[in-house]
Order: sequence, then structure tokens, then C-alpha cells
Amino acid sequence: MKTLVVVGHPRREDSFTQQFFKEGLAQFDHVTWMTVDEQQSVAEQRQLLMAHDRIILQFPLYWYSAPAELKQWIDTVFGDTFALAPRYVLQEKELGLVVTTATAATDFGAGRVEPFTMDELLRPFEALAHRVQMTYLPPLAVHQFAYMTPDEQQRLLVNYQQYVTAPTFQTLAGRGAWIQEQLAHKLAGLTGDDAIKVQALLTQLTDNRDALDDLQMNLRLMKDAGDDDE
Amino acid sequence: MKTLVVVGHPRREDSFTQQFFKEGLAQFDHVTWMTVDEQQSVAEQRQLLMAHDRIILQFPLYWYSAPAELKQWIDTVFGDTFALAPRYVLQEKELGLVVTTATAATDFGAGRVEPFTMDELLRPFEALAHRVQMTYLPPLAVHQFAYMTPDEQQRLLVNYQQYVTAPTFQTLAGRGAWIQEQLAHKLAGLTGDDAIKVQALLTQLTDNRDALDDLQMNLRLMKDAGDDDE
Repeated sequence: MKTLVVVGHPRREDSFTQQFFKEGLAQFDHVTWMTVDEQQSVAEQRQLLMAHDRIILQFPLYWYSAPAELKQWIDTVFGDTFALAPRYVLQEKELGLVVTTATAATDFGAGRVEPFTMDELLRPFEALAHRVQMTYLPPLAVHQFAYMTPDEQQRLLVNYQQYVTAPTFQTLAGRGAWIQEQLAHKLAGLTGDDAIKVQALLTQLTDNRDALDDLQMNLRLMKDAGDDDE
Repeated sequence: MKTLVVVGHPRREDSFTQQFFKEGLAQFDHVTWMTVDEQQSVAEQRQLLMAHDRIILQFPLYWYSAPAELKQWIDTVFGDTFALAPRYVLQEKELGLVVTTATAATDFGAGRVEPFTMDELLRPFEALAHRVQMTYLPPLAVHQFAYMTPDEQQRLLVNYQQYVTAPTFQTLAGRGAWIQEQLAHKLAGLTGDDAIKVQALLTQLTDNRDALDDLQMNLRLMKDAGDDDE
């Protein structure tokens, strides 16, 4: 699976958050990182879209929407009939959003400081995905990055890496498979004690996963037996 | 009441709809028409906002949101701390939206071609109004202007004129008062038969309104009497 990350940040170079994300993706193949101010032709950018399976728009929330620079990119690159009927050229590709905001997660929603949920505010993107027949991924909202502890940042980074690179990140099994793959990749470059430790971790994870699979199988059998009784 | 109409249309000169609206406002004082590509400083544009009571953002729906040019204007002019705490300088001003789209009204909503309502798609603007403590007006959506009959266009024009210039346009009484005011204004410039006709119309409207007021008064009395019986 190939992912294109499109960063629309007016002060990109200054953004510690974007730098953090960019570094977090350095170890991954099959990820292309681009910014909307790059000097590429519309045709080249459309080729980029076509060449990837997952497109991620990554931006700080500016007045409850994308910064103008990113909207310009969307208007231009998605515009005209490129992504539309009669041939939906982006069909079945995935559209993800990584949205950063200085407002706390608990401040969004009915009766709160910000009276709409993030999902509601991002409806225009959901409508866009629907219109061009892309699959809309649940947005990844990053609240108050500057206030996160190092631990919280690390957890965010793993979530982010999965959001960008894991074919399936919405299920426990999908995330587990992704972690095992990362460890196996890491193991290939290790020797000595480090290799033994990572191998042990990998074995443990595989065992856990097998146990989990068994458990789920048993649960399914019990459920089927229960259904027969009805 | 003074109204500022901010037009954010990338191909403004070509837009028959925007021209139609602009001409429809020519007869009104207290309306300022501006486009987002005018060469004014941010300070001047903020002064314009401050000098008006109703701000109307007028734009074609581009990918379910404002065109990038208008978003740029919003990011710049509303940005920084201008419109925000500790002093909400736009507080109690009204924010209206006039949104044109080539998609039919019946195509918006759950299960339809466009799975969200126009109100839902415009939440980011509602959130903006809430954030800067402006009063959000119900958006005026203009669907498929090009397919309207001349009669439909005329009805739209009156709705639009009321949206821009009537202090109260959401009640029958408010719209009635606005029409009487327009007729009185017209009467001042007429003589002879025309003046007599308009005067007759105005008298009729005043009578109707008085009758309506009486009716509402009676209904209220009946309701109060009913409440006493409970």
C-alpha cells in the first residue's frame, strides 16, 4: 500500500508538529511526503494522487477548515472533471485527514466551547470523498500537541504511523499485524542481545495473537451453538 | 443597518449570478459590495467589517466549502486575535452566507446524492460566527440559478434583497415592514397614475397588516383565556 501525505501548513517550516510527524515516517518505504507549496504542475500532482492508494491531507484547523493554501490545492488538483464522472479515477482510494488544533478534545461538541464535533466540522471533506467515490477514513485529530508529555507524543506517533502506513488500522488484529511487521523489519537489522530481545517480543506477540485467535474462535463456536438453541 | 457583502468568486466577472445580485442591490443605500481580490490592506478590511452591522459572505460552493480565495480572506482578515478575546470586536454583528451551487436542493441530505444538508456542510462558518460571538443567520442557498425561470429569479431577488437589507427577514411581519418601506421609498419618486397605484398598494398592505395584527391580538387573548381555564 502506498500513501501520499499532503501537508497544507502555511508556516510548515516552523511547525514542530509537522516536523515530528515527518521524522516519524522516515523509516517507512511506500510513503510520499509532499507540501502544497511545492512547484509541481497540476498534471504531476494528479499523477501523484493516481500513484498512491491512501491520500492523507494533513493540516492545522484554521477557522474550522483547511488553511487557504490547502483549499487552493484541493480546488486546483481535485477540480474540473479530473476526479469526477464519467470515470472516477480516485475510486476506492482512501482519504484520510490528520488535523492539528490547539483546542482540547473535550472542548468540541454540543454545549461546549466549540459547539460542533470535529467529525461535524470536517463534513466538507467527507462529502468530497463521497463525491469522488473515495473511502473516507476516520479523521485523526491531534489536540494540543504542545502540551503532550513525551509518553503521549510517543503513543500519538504510533497511532499516526499506523494511520499512514497500516493497511488496516481500525481493528485490534490490523494494528497487531502492523506491530509484528515493524518488529520483524527491525529484527532484520539487529544482532546479539538486541536481536534476542526483539525476537522474544515477537514470539510473545505471535503467541498472544494465536491465543486471541483461539479465544475468538471459541467465542464464535459458543455463539453458533447458542444460536442453534433458539 | 449597514451591510457588507463580501464576494468570494474566483471568476467573479464571468458570473452571471453575482452580476444579477449586484444589480439587485444598486437601489439600496447602506450596502457595501466588495470582492476579496480588492487591493485593500488588512487594516482597511477590518475597518470595513467594524463599520457594518451585517456581514455577508457570498460564494459558489467549491468542494463543499468556500473557494480558496475567500478562505484566504477569512484566514487573513479574521485571523490573529482581531476578532477574538479579550475583546470581541465583531460581537453582536450578524454573519450571513449566500451560497450558490449547481446542485439541486433536493440532492442534499441523508441518503441523497450529496449525503449532508447544506446547513451541515456550512458548520465551519457557524462555528466561526460562534467563536467571534457574531449572530449566525440562516444561510441563503441558491440552487441551480441557471435553470430558474424569470419568475423564480425575481422571487429569489426579493429574498436576496431582504437577506441583505431587511433588519428582520425571518418573520412575516419583518418582511412585510420591509416591503412597505420599499414601496414608500418608490412612491417618493413617482407622480400621476403611477403614484396613485403605488399609494393604493401601500394602503392595502397597511390595512392587511393592521388586520393581521388584530387577528394575532385576538388569537393571543383567546389563548390567554384558554390558559386561565386550565
